[in-house]
Amino acid sequence: MSRKEPRLYFPHDLKQGVSLALSHDQTHYLMNVMRLGSGDHVRLFCDEHGEWRAKLDVQGKKKAGVVVLDHLRAPQTRPFLGLAFTPLRPHRLSFLVEKAVELGVSDLFPVLTKYTAVRHVNEDKLRAAAIEAAEQCERLDVPTLHPLQDLGQFCGNLTPSQHLYFCHERQEGGLLWDHAGSPPKFPLILVGPEGGFDAQEVTFLKGLPGVTSVSLGQGILRAETAALAALSLFHGAPRA
Amino acid sequence: MSRKEPRLYFPHDLKQGVSLALSHDQTHYLMNVMRLGSGDHVRLFCDEHGEWRAKLDVQGKKKAGVVVLDHLRAPQTRPFLGLAFTPLRPHRLSFLVEKAVELGVSDLFPVLTKYTAVRHVNEDKLRAAAIEAAEQCERLDVPTLHPLQDLGQFCGNLTPSQHLYFCHERQEGGLLWDHAGSPPKFPLILVGPEGGFDAQEVTFLKGLPGVTSVSLGQGILRAETAALAALSLFHGAPRA
Repeated sequence: MSRKEPRLYFPHDLKQGVSLALSHDQTHYLMNVMRLGSGDHVRLFCDEHGEWRAKLDVQGKKKAGVVVLDHLRAPQTRPFLGLAFTPLRPHRLSFLVEKAVELGVSDLFPVLTKYTAVRHVNEDKLRAAAIEAAEQCERLDVPTLHPLQDLGQFCGNLTPSQHLYFCHERQEGGLLWDHAGSPPKFPLILVGPEGGFDAQEVTFLKGLPGVTSVSLGQGILRAETAALAALSLFHGAPRA
Repeated sequence: MSRKEPRLYFPHDLKQGVSLALSHDQTHYLMNVMRLGSGDHVRLFCDEHGEWRAKLDVQGKKKAGVVVLDHLRAPQTRPFLGLAFTPLRPHRLSFLVEKAVELGVSDLFPVLTKYTAVRHVNEDKLRAAAIEAAEQCERLDVPTLHPLQDLGQFCGNLTPSQHLYFCHERQEGGLLWDHAGSPPKFPLILVGPEGGFDAQEVTFLKGLPGVTSVSLGQGILRAETAALAALSLFHGAPRA
């Protein structure tokens, strides 16, 4: 097995022949972590320009650039798959984001509910976790991270074409699995905090159009596991 | 929301009225982490005796026992759901085990393949991770952790009633999703190492009876994500 060329998310104007500077972190990663030198190949990608091969050009101990060579993959339009989740402790939240990126999420919506214990998110850290996961998993895009909203705002911003699956712990009724075979065009998954949803929130959500209340089965899943289990169901399913 | 009583996996002869000693770790957890004192309630469970309520009896700064009170839940027979996985770096492996326990796995099979980078597992640590996850997620049992085997041994030990889904990255052909609607009675999932399976291993696996080679979709999933995505499909599905 030949070793794969490192990939960097690089949202700049990528085209053949241009020279571009690398950030301090990117330089450190390529030179010190991956131990590359001048002339070694890397791959650059972004949502708009797809993936390109480039050549590393070391200019000093802590300074390097790249020269863009050939086009490897055209940009892709990713089908919409939204995940709404409440903030969690940093370790579990980074994990949730990493796995959600691998499982093809297109939009991340942090949402506050009544029983959300952690009341803020570090957007920079979450975005960095999303980029790192995209670099690792051969994606050509990085999901959109939406600003933190409360549950009412989030629901108010849903469009008529979006369909929200409200994952309700211990709820009686349909399993999400019953819906996963032929998901709608714009599916969104909402997973609650460790403390669950408040009764008023449940009533509110159940009363909204375009919302289906579903269960994730009998077991008790942690918030991040519930998100991943739900995303897994849509990851491989053909979209309606 | 009332706080739930802490749960401890406690594979002893649980019955009403008996007094039992707690281990050093259990005592520390209840007294120092959960800050419980004499008379506070905890829950004890094991595969054989189900779940019981018990009363903490503090006997010293670092010494405590319990008195078993009433029976809360009868033991459950869990349907067989096996996961075969290659060793990973400790952080990712603990995570894999934690999530597999939540997603209802009954049997964990660490397996060595040609490209497995990490060549051993710390069985005590894995078992501890499985127990902790079971304590958290309201399971009444802890999955069986089988000893490390190489791929040939593992396949040689499969029984005719078991059906192995060999999750093969980038493979052409059926998706695991096509099989998840009506899984067989004894499904097993096999997920490879980061480096993938060797060509000879693929030929070997495809030639075995009771093995179906399946894909997990177009994305590249890390080993632990692949395991979780695959388990998620069987977690909620009714068994044939």
